[in-house]
Parts: sequence; C-alpha cells; structure tokens
Amino acid sequence: MSTRKFRFGMVGGGEGAFIGQVHRIAAELDGEAELVCGAFASNPERSRRSGQSLYRLHADRCYDNYEALFQLEANRADAMDFVVIATPNHTHYSIARAALEGGFHVVCDKPLAMSVLEGEQLQNVVKASGLKFALTHNYTGYPMVREARSLVNSGVLGKIRRVSCEYLQGWLHERAPDDNKQAAWRTDPARSGAAGCFGDIGSHAENLTRFITGLEIESLAADLTAFVPGRLLDDDGNVLLRFKGGAKGVISASQIAVGKENDLSIQVYGETGGLEWRQSDANSLIVRWPDKPYEVRRTGWAGTSPESQAASRIPPGHPEGYLEGFAELYRNFYKDLSDDGGDYPNLDDGIAGMRFIESVVESTKQNSAWVDLAS
Amino acid sequence: MSTRKFRFGMVGGGEGAFIGQVHRIAAELDGEAELVCGAFASNPERSRRSGQSLYRLHADRCYDNYEALFQLEANRADAMDFVVIATPNHTHYSIARAALEGGFHVVCDKPLAMSVLEGEQLQNVVKASGLKFALTHNYTGYPMVREARSLVNSGVLGKIRRVSCEYLQGWLHERAPDDNKQAAWRTDPARSGAAGCFGDIGSHAENLTRFITGLEIESLAADLTAFVPGRLLDDDGNVLLRFKGGAKGVISASQIAVGKENDLSIQVYGETGGLEWRQSDANSLIVRWPDKPYEVRRTGWAGTSPESQAASRIPPGHPEGYLEGFAELYRNFYKDLSDDGGDYPNLDDGIAGMRFIESVVESTKQNSAWVDLAS
Amino acid sequence: MSTRKFRFGMVGGGEGAFIGQVHRIAAELDGEAELVCGAFASNPERSRRSGQSLYRLHADRCYDNYEALFQLEANRADAMDFVVIATPNHTHYSIARAALEGGFHVVCDKPLAMSVLEGEQLQNVVKASGLKFALTHNYTGYPMVREARSLVNSGVLGKIRRVSCEYLQGWLHERAPDDNKQAAWRTDPARSGAAGCFGDIGSHAENLTRFITGLEIESLAADLTAFVPGRLLDDDGNVLLRFKGGAKGVISASQIAVGKENDLSIQVYGETGGLEWRQSDANSLIVRWPDKPYEVRRTGWAGTSPESQAASRIPPGHPEGYLEGFAELYRNFYKDLSDDGGDYPNLDDGIAGMRFIESVVESTKQNSAWVDLAS
Amino acid sequence: MSTRKFRFGMVGGGEGAFIGQVHRIAAELDGEAELVCGAFASNPERSRRSGQSLYRLHADRCYDNYEALFQLEANRADAMDFVVIATPNHTHYSIARAALEGGFHVVCDKPLAMSVLEGEQLQNVVKASGLKFALTHNYTGYPMVREARSLVNSGVLGKIRRVSCEYLQGWLHERAPDDNKQAAWRTDPARSGAAGCFGDIGSHAENLTRFITGLEIESLAADLTAFVPGRLLDDDGNVLLRFKGGAKGVISASQIAVGKENDLSIQVYGETGGLEWRQSDANSLIVRWPDKPYEVRRTGWAGTSPESQAASRIPPGHPEGYLEGFAELYRNFYKDLSDDGGDYPNLDDGIAGMRFIESVVESTKQNSAWVDLAS
Repeated sequence: MSTRKFRFGMVGGGEGAFIGQVHRIAAELDGEAELVCGAFASNPERSRRSGQSLYRLHADRCYDNYEALFQLEANRADAMDFVVIATPNHTHYSIARAALEGGFHVVCDKPLAMSVLEGEQLQNVVKASGLKFALTHNYTGYPMVREARSLVNSGVLGKIRRVSCEYLQGWLHERAPDDNKQAAWRTDPARSGAAGCFGDIGSHAENLTRFITGLEIESLAADLTAFVPGRLLDDDGNVLLRFKGGAKGVISASQIAVGKENDLSIQVYGETGGLEWRQSDANSLIVRWPDKPYEVRRTGWAGTSPESQAASRIPPGHPEGYLEGFAELYRNFYKDLSDDGGDYPNLDDGIAGMRFIESVVESTKQNSAWVDLAS
Repeated sequence: MSTRKFRFGMVGGGEGAFIGQVHRIAAELDGEAELVCGAFASNPERSRRSGQSLYRLHADRCYDNYEALFQLEANRADAMDFVVIATPNHTHYSIARAALEGGFHVVCDKPLAMSVLEGEQLQNVVKASGLKFALTHNYTGYPMVREARSLVNSGVLGKIRRVSCEYLQGWLHERAPDDNKQAAWRTDPARSGAAGCFGDIGSHAENLTRFITGLEIESLAADLTAFVPGRLLDDDGNVLLRFKGGAKGVISASQIAVGKENDLSIQVYGETGGLEWRQSDANSLIVRWPDKPYEVRRTGWAGTSPESQAASRIPPGHPEGYLEGFAELYRNFYKDLSDDGGDYPNLDDGIAGMRFIESVVESTKQNSAWVDLAS
Repeated sequence: MSTRKFRFGMVGGGEGAFIGQVHRIAAELDGEAELVCGAFASNPERSRRSGQSLYRLHADRCYDNYEALFQLEANRADAMDFVVIATPNHTHYSIARAALEGGFHVVCDKPLAMSVLEGEQLQNVVKASGLKFALTHNYTGYPMVREARSLVNSGVLGKIRRVSCEYLQGWLHERAPDDNKQAAWRTDPARSGAAGCFGDIGSHAENLTRFITGLEIESLAADLTAFVPGRLLDDDGNVLLRFKGGAKGVISASQIAVGKENDLSIQVYGETGGLEWRQSDANSLIVRWPDKPYEVRRTGWAGTSPESQAASRIPPGHPEGYLEGFAELYRNFYKDLSDDGGDYPNLDDGIAGMRFIESVVESTKQNSAWVDLAS
Repeated sequence: MSTRKFRFGMVGGGEGAFIGQVHRIAAELDGEAELVCGAFASNPERSRRSGQSLYRLHADRCYDNYEALFQLEANRADAMDFVVIATPNHTHYSIARAALEGGFHVVCDKPLAMSVLEGEQLQNVVKASGLKFALTHNYTGYPMVREARSLVNSGVLGKIRRVSCEYLQGWLHERAPDDNKQAAWRTDPARSGAAGCFGDIGSHAENLTRFITGLEIESLAADLTAFVPGRLLDDDGNVLLRFKGGAKGVISASQIAVGKENDLSIQVYGETGGLEWRQSDANSLIVRWPDKPYEVRRTGWAGTSPESQAASRIPPGHPEGYLEGFAELYRNFYKDLSDDGGDYPNLDDGIAGMRFIESVVESTKQNSAWVDLAS
C-alpha cells in the first residue's frame, strides 16, 4: 500500500527570496513530502500572496505570521509534520523554539542562531521534546562530499594533517542596491549577527571541513575584514586552524572576490593520501596518492562507496547539482522521521558553527590571537 | 488566487526503470504539476505495485495497461491532463496515438517512433486534435544550450561552417548481464528499432545539433558498427554531415567507449566565432573569438541572454544539472498548455530524428554512400 | 672524457619563419648538438643575414642555397653531421635527396614530400646510403603520448575498437593578409601539395593515431572542404576510417575553427579500457576503466611507464611543452646517430602520411567514396 | 654581423642535481649564451666528471672548487661573463660574494642567502661593483604571470583587496630515503636555513605575490609546522598577510600535500576584477569581471599585453612550460648585460624574500603573533 507524503510548512521564503523555492523543490524532489502551508513573509498580505502565487496553496493555509502558523496548524487533522525556517539569521532561534514548542519537527537554515548560547538552549528544547531538528548545511548532501568523508573514515588517507577550505563569492564586492533584499539583511548586524561573510558562507566552509574530516577545531586565529566602505560586517577573511589531534589548516571566505560565483572547495591531506573537491565540478572527487596516478571518482561510478552511491539518483554522467544535494538532506531527514536513521546536519553541527563564528569574530577583535574553542 | 496544478499520468516508468523517476521529478520540480495515475508496467500486478510504492499513488489510479488508463481516466472529473510515455521505443507510436485519441496531451520519450512514417501519422493526429505533443530531447533544456542557440541566432558567430557533436558512453562495451533491463531492450531490434546506439543517443546528438544551429541536414554518410560479439544493432558510429546552406560536420556516437559515462559535447564554428559545450560541465559555455581571449559564459551570470537566464532557477554558481534541464522542457510544455508559447522539442524534431536514424542505417547498408534527407 | 656535440645545418628557417628557431632550440636543448651552418632563405642575402642575426653564425657558413651548403660543407673537416629541412612542402623532396646524396643525415619537416612516389624514392636512397632520416611529427615526443602508446602496447586496453583524433585551428578562418608568409605557402597548391589543412595538420593527426595505436588504416572516406572564398586547398575536413583488424574511427582537422589555437586531441577505446590526450593539457593522460574511477597519468609521476619517463627531463609538476616534445625527437635521433636505437618518426611514417593525404584528396574527389590504402 | 654568445660558468649542478640541467637549458635556450666552465661539485673529482659527462666541457674548465673557478677564469681571454650559482642555500652568500669580488655577474638560485643581513651585504657589494645580479624566481617568467602583472598595473582590476597564493607539493610527505640528495639538504637546517618548506617554496609564493601585485607585505602571522616525525624544519604552513595600503591575503605552502606535484597558484581580487593563475595550466590566465562572462587569456593570443607576448616564443596553442619560463629570466638578464633594461628578479626581491622567511619563522616562534616587515 502507499504511504502518505509528509506535510510541511514554511516560514519565510516569500516573494524575492530565492531560498524558498530551493527548499520547496528540495523537500519535494523525492516525492516524499509536500508543502501545505506557511507564513511566507512578515507582512500578512505578502505572506498570503506568496503562498498562493508562488506555491499554489489555498488561502486558508497561508498564515499571517509564524505564531498563527504553529497555533492553527496544530489544530488541524491534516496538520503539517514539520516546518522549514527560511528567514534571516536573527529570527531562527525564536521561530525554531516556537515550532518545537508547538510540537513540530524543524528544518532550519544556517546559521543556527545568533550565539552558542541560543544554540544550546535549542538543543535542550529538542532533547526534551524528542523532535527532530535539521540544519541545512546543504553542501554535505553532494554524493562526492559523502565519498570524501567515506574515504577519510576508511583510513586510507592516513591520519589527517592538512585541511584547507575556501569559499569565494563576488556578489558583495560593492555596496548592493538598496532594493537587494538578499544583500540587505546579510550585511546588517541586527539581522545577520556579529559576522557577515563568515556567518553566511564561512560557516558552510567550517561545516564542510567538519563533515568530511570529522576533526574538531581546537583553536583558531582569524583576520576578518570589511572591505566595502560603510559595511559594518566582514565581507572577507582568512582563518588559521589547529585541530584536536594535531592537524592544521586554513579557512578562507570572501564575498568581494569579484567574478567568483559561489566557489566552495576543500582539500584534505593525510599521511598517505589526499583529496580535493570543488562545488563547481561537484560530481568529481580528486583523490591523490604518493605512488600512482591520481584518480577522479565520479558520482555513481564504479569504485565509489555505497555511502556516496546512496546519495545519487540518476546514472553516472547525468550531472546532479545543488538542488539534488539539498534534497539529500531532506531525504535523510525523512528517514529519521520514520525512525530509520538519517544522516544530516543537526544541532551539534549548528552549535559548532556558532562557536566557530563567535571565535573568528573574537580573534579578529584580539588582533588575530588564537582563540580556544573548548566545548 | 492559486491555480491548480496540472495532473499527469505515466505509461512505463515502473520498477527498475530509472527514467520514470526522472520524469516524475522533472515534471513536478517547478510545482506546476503532479503525478496522479499511470500504467507503470506491462504486467498489471507490477504496474500497481510500482504506482503505490514508487509514486505513492492510490491503487485505483494504478491501471492494468495503457488502454485502461486512457479509458478510465477520461471518465473522471479529476482526470489527468497529459500523459508521459516512458516505455521502450517500439511502443511509443501506439501509446501516443491512443493517448491523443483519448484526448490527452502527450510527453513522449525519444525516439518518437520506429519510422518517419509513424512520426508523420502522429503529426496528422496531433494537428487534427489540437493537442500538445512534447518529445523529451532533454539536453535542450540546459541554460547554456539555450545560450548557445541564442548566440548562433544573434548572428555574432557569422554564418555557420562547421559543426561536430559527439556522444560517448561506455556502459555497453560488453554484453550486458541478462537481467539488465536497460540494456536488454536497447540492444533488441524488435523493441529498439533499426538502430541501437544511434536510436538511443545518436538521435540526441542530432537533435542538439539541430536545436543549437537551426541547420537542416541535407545529406549524410554513415558508418555504424556493432562491435560487441552477437549484438544485432549498432553500438558505435560516425556520420559525415552536409547541411543545407553549405555547412559541414560530423556526428559520432558510441556505447562502447569504455569508461565514458554520458559524455555529450558539441562544437560549432561560424565565420566569426565559435562555441563549445559539454554536458559534463553543463553550466559553462565556451565562446571563442578571433581577436580576443575566449570567454566562458556561465548559467545565470551577467552577460548571458535572457533566453538562457529564463531557463535557470537558482543563483549563478549553484550547479544545475540533468534533472533541472529535463524540468525545463516540462516548464515550457506547461506554458504551452496555458497557451502562452513554450519552447520545447516537438513532432517536427521527432520526425527529423526518425529521418536521421533511418538515413544513418540506410547509408551504412550502402557502404557509407551519401543519403539525402529530402523532407 | 667529453664527447663532441653533433653539428648540424639548416635549410630554411630564415627571417619570418618561426619553425627555424623551434628546430634550433629543440635540436640544441639537450646539449648534444649545435647549429653550425645553413642556407636559411632562397635569397642569398637573406640567407646570410638570417644566419648571422638569428643564429649568430659566421658569414662563411651561411650559404647561398642548399646546393652550396651540401657541397661546401662536405669539404670541411668540421662539416655538419646532419641537416634540418624546414622549408615549404614542395621542396622537401629535392632538398632531402640532395642532402642524402651529399652524405648527410636528414631531419625533415612533415609532410615528407608531394606524393607517395617521392616518398618511396627517398626511402630507396636512404636504404642505399645507410644514412638516418627523421621526420618531425613532433607530437609523438610528448611523454604522455608515449605513455599512451605504451598502454596500448601493453594490452591492458584490450583490442582497440574506436579511435578519434581531432586537430582544430582557427588562424585561417579568413583570407590571411598577403604578407603572412606562413599562410601564403600553406594555402598555395604549388608549394603545399594537393591538400592544405590535411597536408599541414591532418597528417599530424594521422601520425598520432598511427603512433599510439599501431593500427594501419585500411580504407577511408573523406569530405574535405575549402570554406574561405577563393581558397584553392581544403581548410577543413572529416574522414571516416577503417583500420586493418576491424577498428573504426574518425579524423577531423580544421583551420577555420575560429578561436581554436592548436587543439590536437585523441581518444582511443579498446575492449577493456580507454584513453584520452589533449595537447593543451599535454602532461596529463586520462585513462578510463569499466569498473573503477578514471585515472590521470602525469608526466614523470609514479605509475607511468619507463618509456614515458625517459621522455621527460624535469620533476613532475614542472610543465613540459611543445619545445621539449620536439626536442625528444632529436634526442632519439642522436641516439640513432650513435647507433644506439632511437625512437622517432621515420620514412615509413612519412610514406604512410603521404598515402593518407593522397587518399583523403582522392576520396573527396569521389564524393567520399571509400578509398583503399593498400600498401 | 653576428655577436658572440655570452659565456657562463656554473657552481653546483653536478651529478644528481636536476637544477643544473635546468639552468643549462634555460640559459642556452635562446641561443644567446653557452656554458663554458664550472665547479660542479664540492668534490674535485666529481666536479670534473660532471662537467665532462653532463655538460661536454673540456677538463681544463672543470674546476676543483668555486675559488679556483673565479680565480682561473679571471685570467683567461675567453673568461666566462657570468656565473650561475646552483648550490644548497647556505652557500649562496659566500659563493655570490666571491663571484662578485672576482668581477663576474651572478645568477643565483633562491633563496638569496641565510638572512636579511647577508642579503643586504650582497646588495652593497653589487652596488659598489656595478655588476648585475639575478635571482631565479623563475615562475615570474611565465607569459601569463607577466600578463597578470600587466593587468594589475593597468588598473582595470581596481585597487587590490585580496590576494591568496598556494604552493603545494607532496614529495616530502614522509621521511625521504637517505640517498635522496634533493631532500637531504632541504630538510637540514645547517644547509637550508631556518625555514624548510617556506625557504624552498614558500618564498616562491611570496615572490609571485610581490611580482604580480607590486604590494609590500606590512605584517604577517604565520603557523608553520613540521609534520613528518624527526623533521627539524617546517614542511607545511599557512600565513596571514596584511599589505601596505590595506590589502589582505594568505600564503600557504606545503611539502606534505600527498600527491600534489608542484602546484603553485595565485588569486588576486581588486575592487573591479579578479584573476587566477595556476602553474599546472600555465598558459591560461583566468580574468573575472562583475558584469560579463569570465575570460581566459592565453599565451600569445590576441588581447594579451605586449609585455606577456614578449615573453613567449612560439605561436599560441603550442604549450610553453617551465623551461621556457626559466629561460625568460635569462633572456632578460642578457638584455641587462647589454645595458638594454631587463625585467628579472633581483636583490631587492631576494632581500624581501629573506625578510619574509625570517618573519614567518619569527611569527611561528611567537605563536603566530603579527610580525612587522618594516623595511
């Protein structure tokens, strides 16, 4: 017999917010869930209009605000099962908290919150509730990122020594037009938090590093900069890393790298092998050895791990992209909703991310002194 | 107010057929349609099981066969609007014809039919019915393929002189295991038609050439080969092309190119510029000029045509892949269903494809003599 | 004790001819030979000026013409050991013949001559004289091209089935200015022979195919075209190939591929593996397998054959280019001069090349009919 | 009339030292100079054997040691004009000083010396003597590196904000065999100086940054590491950079990046454009803009600067590599010897390099504190 699809709502993701459609597509891609309701904008009228025109929802499930969403959905027989939070950073905590208290599972955009403290409080609420919580560090959903993790875990690269991760964009290389909503909140401390570029994309780099290597950052020394005149938050930075166990590394992120689209890449070197992955060629993983030609592992191809093959949907050579990687998080979240495991970024990752962000800001304030990330 | 989604059914696409999920994902990706019914396998039991387990459909809309599908759906108030035909080649014609006669729009896998004649008969039925008919030459949905066409059309490359298109796979380099359904029908003349590799992927190369350049093949000289012992249909071939207007070119396709995944590429050279696209780097289009550095146009980036930008969904640098390209065909098909235009491969393309296939087979029989493709 | 360097002279290579310096650099690169004399231009004054200014030679070893060169050098105690022929195609035969008759070894630019017949006559002279004769199919000197040959020879790719080789340039996409000497003779039937693009670069493609695979072309069907108005020789073409033993393939060459610099590439597929090489990334050889990730062999790196390692001079990762590849031919020629073997293109290759050129011209005349290359 | 070639000698470069042949080839490549003498090893017997067998020199110009070389050559009518110093780092200073005092121009391997102080003393000697001094930061000889500098200088990229340069090798990822001479001195503080990886290749990265951007490092914070057990010098490190004028950046270098051959790359971002160069694709320079497709400038192709075109020797598409880049330094050095300008790394670069090396070591000792590089 057929099983019903999961039902979900969305907070944010209204007109002008590209990430709303990304969530909708990714969440529905595998046919396991459907968007049924939401509070899509802070303005009730815009919320309703967005829900109807962007998502073809009935007016009665387009709510005025997230409080109404959680309250009224809870009363329905066909209530949503989980909520997707796709709003500016400073609102994640309150909305997530309200959702959990309303009894809904949560999928939340990163960064998790505005502080480690907020993150830990959410952790407590989640633990008490038994609800599930996913954080959308979506780059971990690419098959070849999972292949990379699998390689590290297998031990064939030996003990990891050197990690470098770079995330470069150019779209904020100058002051954005006032009507650019994406730019507006990302460069506003009140809505984005203490970090700009590092809250937005630096935290993805940190999470990718963590995901693939499994290493914990012990301490870091950062030099963040706001290059664009008048900008209050960093738009560029480089961070030296020391990991527990002795590995070293560097994370760079920038939003003033003119002409760079969304260039996330990582290199990992162990005692006996190395790997390299770049989102712009997402279906390839370069693996290097001391004593033979380097190899290129490809999504779904022979010789890749079951773990990465499970994250692919179509035959090798049919490129899978950003949306499929994003969908992989949802697919694993659904597994977990069915109590069947599920491999996706969670609150531990979110709290680690908050700690990273707080630490790079703190180190920058201290003229790049080493800051410990004691957990 | 919100508009309802289009409803569609599927013929084929049951267990073991990867293309069924591709259609389902692509058709639903933009939130404009939903799969509601189907006849997913020739065996009624498997059809029902597939519909329920793969697509979460209710048993009463999983039909025993396509005849039942068309007949019973026609009686429902919530009947499907169109049907997707995802079956082996030899059945396309009959199913498409039945669907059209049942009053349903059609999205049909390529190649269109088993002969030019069948294609022309379908053309007649479509014209008489006023129904819409799309053929899934999905590679035309990539934004950078549309950018390529736009460049040619703009005239900046000058009159086109040389075109080469290559489509290489390796998966049939040896006799496939008997339980490989994908391989089984593709190498069986009864189900695949007179051409193997050229029916399957050579026709994609022909269509891509046609789509980007707008040129009509005037005549061709082909040398197809079946390399794998015991194989009855070509698994490799090269074709010389002469286009109306004087351009020349070559199409190569192979399924015995060991280690090649699904490597489709095209080069077009005009009097004043050239372009190069490769599916494995689908979001880049290389454009070459005589007197300045070559440029790389990227999906969604500044400097690309409105036509290609319209075929993208997410910001530049977020790779879009095979599924999104496939979805672009559906998006355009839906536009057309709403009588709002729509730019997708149709019966003209299908008939041109059949003519190409027939001609390469004919030329091979005649020891590579030139065969005219008079229309 | 130290050994003296070989001494060589040059015919051609005067002012305005880039290939003269290429020969001088390549021949001297490994410190085994030095240019000591020459007849650098058909005009005695220019010959002398070129020899003195371009090559820093004494006036008394800059000769009026090649006849004088061979005659006067033969009388010197410190006479040249061999001569390099770097003149337009139509003169190769006469000069080579005169050099051999004068008792000098020869290094000759390709194509060898203006006909198979001329080639065979040179072959006879060489055999009678016991002198050495090298033909500068320089692309065979790249370490990764030698790696490719070694792979084929080792048998790991299985029996070869499919070969495609493409050589695209754009520099003749329009009529060249009258003072472009390079273009002038290459597009002049009197000086270039019956083929233009195919005599110039198509023959390199043929030789590369022959070198790597060891296969003999049994028959071919060609369609050559002169696209640029007023041009008398082909500037573009595609050729279907059938090899002895059953392999098939295609060679394409063009000089009107706008924006292409000098893009030579080859793909070879056997029953159990495939390879791909491209001159623009000359130090990489892609090797593909059915059942594991593809590998990239790199000049000098672990896992490459002794044969290719012997063709490299510097540690891996220090790119070696065109001049080093060219020098590899000379290095092997010197080995042979010392009667120590030597692996370089010779008169057999030259005659095969002439037969290829004659055949593509013949097939084109016969509307692409298959032409046998019986040897 | 012809001009005589420059004559040069070499110190070091004997058996087992690949860099000796690199110098010989590069210095002679353009036909402007010839090796005539040398002291090729610290052992007189090996010196003589190397000179005769590797370089085909007469025994009487293979000297016992560099003192003899300078003294005896000075007395010859056909004395060498300049000397190439290709010895381990700790001997550069003494040999260079002796050469200058003997009246010979100098081409010296990098790093210049063992300290800034030594560098400044050499500077004084050079200034007093009027002799020429070149330092072989050879990567500055690549045409596309010169194109990059030209782009920055032209101002089209705007004021530079962000620079990152990475130089990764893997060959020292484990303890080298005892008989590996290359590894032995590079990992020995007595012969290599206070820095290992950063003295060897980090200083190339610093110089490339300096060459392309023209920026001076104001201060740096470094974290160098010796990963391989028992190793006394760094084999890996990352350095935060602050440049005069406000730009920021990072330099990474490693010799334990398993499988990396010799991967030097640099990215530079200004207010209005960015560029990217990678030695493994040395003939391409990627240039990015905010509002149009990115472009790839290619060695010698239309649209590149006269400055970079002057650094090329052969037509576009004929790859030029490491040896040609190295030769470009010599070509410029010869220009300068003829008092005709000449654009090559000199003692200013060498002293800046020594200051960089001293500072990264100092900062590492101080737990990555910022160290000023006041000049």
